[in-house]
Amino acid sequence: MRMLLRCAARANPQYEHIAGRARARGIFTLRPRHKSFRSLFSNTDSLESGTFTLKVLTGAAVFAAFIAAVNLRPSILHAASSSSISPPQRTFRLSEVRAHGCNATEKWVTKGTKVYDITDWIPGHPGGEVILRAVGGAIDQYWEIFAIHEKQEVYDILEGFYIGDVDPQDLVDGKVPDEHIDDPFVHDPKRDERLVVLTGRPFNAETPQGSLDTFVTPTETFYVRHHMWVPDLDPAKQKLVVELPDGEEMEYSLSDLQRKFEAVRITATMQCSGNRRGHMTEKARSTKGLQWGSGAISNGIWTGVRLRDVLQDAGFPISDVPDEVKHVQFMGAEAYGASIPIDKAVDKRGDVILAYALNDEPLPADHGYPLRVVVPGNVAARSVKWLSRIRLSEEESQSQWQQRDYKCFGPNVSGDPDWTTAPAIQEVPVQSAITSLRNISAQSQSDRKLLHSYGLEEDGIAVEGYAFSGGGRRIIRVDVSANDGKTWQQAELLPNEDLGAKAWAWQRWRWILPRSQAGKCFVVKAVDEAYNTQPGEYEANWNFRGNLTQAWHRVGYDNDALRKND
Amino acid sequence: MRMLLRCAARANPQYEHIAGRARARGIFTLRPRHKSFRSLFSNTDSLESGTFTLKVLTGAAVFAAFIAAVNLRPSILHAASSSSISPPQRTFRLSEVRAHGCNATEKWVTKGTKVYDITDWIPGHPGGEVILRAVGGAIDQYWEIFAIHEKQEVYDILEGFYIGDVDPQDLVDGKVPDEHIDDPFVHDPKRDERLVVLTGRPFNAETPQGSLDTFVTPTETFYVRHHMWVPDLDPAKQKLVVELPDGEEMEYSLSDLQRKFEAVRITATMQCSGNRRGHMTEKARSTKGLQWGSGAISNGIWTGVRLRDVLQDAGFPISDVPDEVKHVQFMGAEAYGASIPIDKAVDKRGDVILAYALNDEPLPADHGYPLRVVVPGNVAARSVKWLSRIRLSEEESQSQWQQRDYKCFGPNVSGDPDWTTAPAIQEVPVQSAITSLRNISAQSQSDRKLLHSYGLEEDGIAVEGYAFSGGGRRIIRVDVSANDGKTWQQAELLPNEDLGAKAWAWQRWRWILPRSQAGKCFVVKAVDEAYNTQPGEYEANWNFRGNLTQAWHRVGYDNDALRKND
Repeated sequence: MRMLLRCAARANPQYEHIAGRARARGIFTLRPRHKSFRSLFSNTDSLESGTFTLKVLTGAAVFAAFIAAVNLRPSILHAASSSSISPPQRTFRLSEVRAHGCNATEKWVTKGTKVYDITDWIPGHPGGEVILRAVGGAIDQYWEIFAIHEKQEVYDILEGFYIGDVDPQDLVDGKVPDEHIDDPFVHDPKRDERLVVLTGRPFNAETPQGSLDTFVTPTETFYVRHHMWVPDLDPAKQKLVVELPDGEEMEYSLSDLQRKFEAVRITATMQCSGNRRGHMTEKARSTKGLQWGSGAISNGIWTGVRLRDVLQDAGFPISDVPDEVKHVQFMGAEAYGASIPIDKAVDKRGDVILAYALNDEPLPADHGYPLRVVVPGNVAARSVKWLSRIRLSEEESQSQWQQRDYKCFGPNVSGDPDWTTAPAIQEVPVQSAITSLRNISAQSQSDRKLLHSYGLEEDGIAVEGYAFSGGGRRIIRVDVSANDGKTWQQAELLPNEDLGAKAWAWQRWRWILPRSQAGKCFVVKAVDEAYNTQPGEYEANWNFRGNLTQAWHRVGYDNDALRKND
Repeated sequence: MRMLLRCAARANPQYEHIAGRARARGIFTLRPRHKSFRSLFSNTDSLESGTFTLKVLTGAAVFAAFIAAVNLRPSILHAASSSSISPPQRTFRLSEVRAHGCNATEKWVTKGTKVYDITDWIPGHPGGEVILRAVGGAIDQYWEIFAIHEKQEVYDILEGFYIGDVDPQDLVDGKVPDEHIDDPFVHDPKRDERLVVLTGRPFNAETPQGSLDTFVTPTETFYVRHHMWVPDLDPAKQKLVVELPDGEEMEYSLSDLQRKFEAVRITATMQCSGNRRGHMTEKARSTKGLQWGSGAISNGIWTGVRLRDVLQDAGFPISDVPDEVKHVQFMGAEAYGASIPIDKAVDKRGDVILAYALNDEPLPADHGYPLRVVVPGNVAARSVKWLSRIRLSEEESQSQWQQRDYKCFGPNVSGDPDWTTAPAIQEVPVQSAITSLRNISAQSQSDRKLLHSYGLEEDGIAVEGYAFSGGGRRIIRVDVSANDGKTWQQAELLPNEDLGAKAWAWQRWRWILPRSQAGKCFVVKAVDEAYNTQPGEYEANWNFRGNLTQAWHRVGYDNDALRKND
């Protein structure tokens, strides 16, 4: 634990006394039966029981969890552990469990019909402060969301905190009744029925095909990528905390931000690192993660205030960044976390904003109400929603979404690699997809007009789609093929209404060709302003997490069918 | 001509009176027989004789040429044309021709045994001020360098300025003797014999294979890419002129720069846009340009002063760039010109420097002595050598190297495209190549040590090479294959000694594998920090200029041969 505590102390000297107390009490000693806890961490983690040394170079956010936990309730460290080697065979009423919630010194949970005192476990919980949400109630529903718990090692750890059973009086049909089990998704909003749902809890859904055909994606069909539930936040009470390198904290309410700083309006495309993962799985090999098609991407108009302005106001020298600050960490109110390099954050042309509006309306709950960070040009996973804390740090976020999930490895790597060998995805590579393929008829008046504008008299095919590249690199050319890549032409780049210092928004494109020229497969590939291109095939860029799929997008065409996607 | 003159006047009000006089005299009227002049320009150019309107939206540097010409010798515009519709049948002594040189009001040249008065042509010469180098002498040797002249239209234009023939007394064997013909390459230095020479005049040569195997390329085998000759510059007399948007000029000598500004040392890779063009030609189709292998790239340590510091000193507001300044144009003393976007120039982390040293020695003549600009992360064509003038402008350089040659078009485009439809190459895409492939033997003591460091006991193969990406995007992974891309492994990234705000230098890499694993073809592909990758094949990224070849580099392997390149 020494390293953790040292980190915590360095990040914020006020924790030093807590760390000292923790050492004195030995409350981080893990029981011998928990040796397998080690396997929860990546290869480079090591945990030495007895010596109190826990090195966490990567892995599951122990550092963040510790900080988060002590931040939220420093008092939990003051409490002596009530668990012991031989737990007494006791029963507890559910009301007693509820009394051991967030505000109690001893924090209990139930799983099934068993009761656990997890007070000592909380500071080391790899998943962070989210565990506090469960105390005083059941954890079953959270373990369903976070599948990482479904391992014998995790069950073993939990059993170490067993203190007794739920009193049979409170059971219904031998189970804890539903009303005792909090629904973490209770505040999830109603969604548009056109969204293409991949998972309901947490909610993950693609933008439907019809909504991908405009420069600005309609808010109600903007794709949704959640790792957890939607938190219920009151903008009047919610504060954004900015934590400076010396540990000092500044707080801003939404109205503070709106009052103190210039409003900025940018267009920026959000793209999930898993966009088109389903194509990679289909054309190469199976990948881990949600099997998205081409719709885990949307483009919006975002309004907010510049992160650099806020950092400056909070007392951070944005023009002369100290060497020890290399990253800006963002924490969401639901427990999600991620970070970006400091250079992006302070760059005058980086356009990182704390956004409170999407498409000129307050952010919807699904997109971070009341406040999210928008990091244009970077993978959407860095644009943390329900933003509650910003931390200036020498280190990247220790969350699994920074340290593990959003990385790419070579096509020969799978399983549990050395996660430190690949950098967290920030800027994304050039991408394109066909979003619409339709026959247009010279007999139809409206189609005829379109055909004429392309100099065509005969029946045609209209092909449309998007192209996008990270880092604000403008799309300069879109090559399209009607014969599976044998020959190419250039698509028309449709007019954009870009807002911002760089090309943060996707490029919509269109190609209209005589129907007689259509083969069996349409293909698109794009080129950005650094003349980066897309690879033709999937296999050589396959990665076991299926991130950043960018092989040429191929769509089968059948003259009898209006649309037929690959 | 109106537009040109307006532009000139806007750029520098002092030209307005010259423009006025030129209009009054009508000296820009082109004779009817010169209609074909128009075809020298791109599609969007138009030239209306009689109305004095010449629109030059793109094309062959007429604007630059005009400015350059009037800058150098405003007096040429004061002279009435001495050519006429029916030139007299006269003969001239070569001494008379010499008397009509740079300092004369009438400027003559010879081609073969004919004499031409090109006074009126100079302001419109598409190639710029370089034409002044030829006046008073022969142009034959320049037309050999600039193959663009070998067109009937150009001959027709020249014939319009015909005034007579060289006096037979001066001819030897019916030809102008060699001593009358200036050698433009007279100041070219002696070069290292290991350089792989593609052309001698102008000099173009690759870094030899052995010199590609170190992080810093030795100065004497640093690749050389010249468009013309090496100018003979005296650093004591040579001035750098900085031309501000209002036309004001500031001058700096080399010692001024060294005295006034902080010296900066960066490592930066120069890569010709044509690097590996020969591979594209071989594997796809023929391309136009020098057929480079993998050696049109080198890495150096550059010392100089920050362009942004110089611009600021000259009075340009680098922190609040006016809207009308979008580009920084660079002119070399030999006539080469190019530009970069203003954002790169003023970016604190852009590291654009005016360099006076390479590898800690004064720049060699071949690399721009005494001063060149180094634009790290961009194609080398923007790092103008023998830097003589910097201009802040709303427009890109109008040189052919900005407007035409260094662009990429789709694989379906060839011939004479609409050059405005592709942007000038600036940042370059991700690239890699194998530079060395050698058998290493477990019998050899030194090899055995190397094998052991990779955990091998048996005979091996050592594969080495470089990887590089533009924009300072670090190489994060190099994938190598010993079986033509069927399976991959990761090469070791060798330690770099990067200097600068971003990764401006290439990444050297090494892979050592058991000889038993070698197939017939080794392959390399790289990934940069934005996870951009290289395409597998050449054809779909073929472009008729053969620029930015970046398909996976394949090298054949034959166990009997130590090296065998594709």
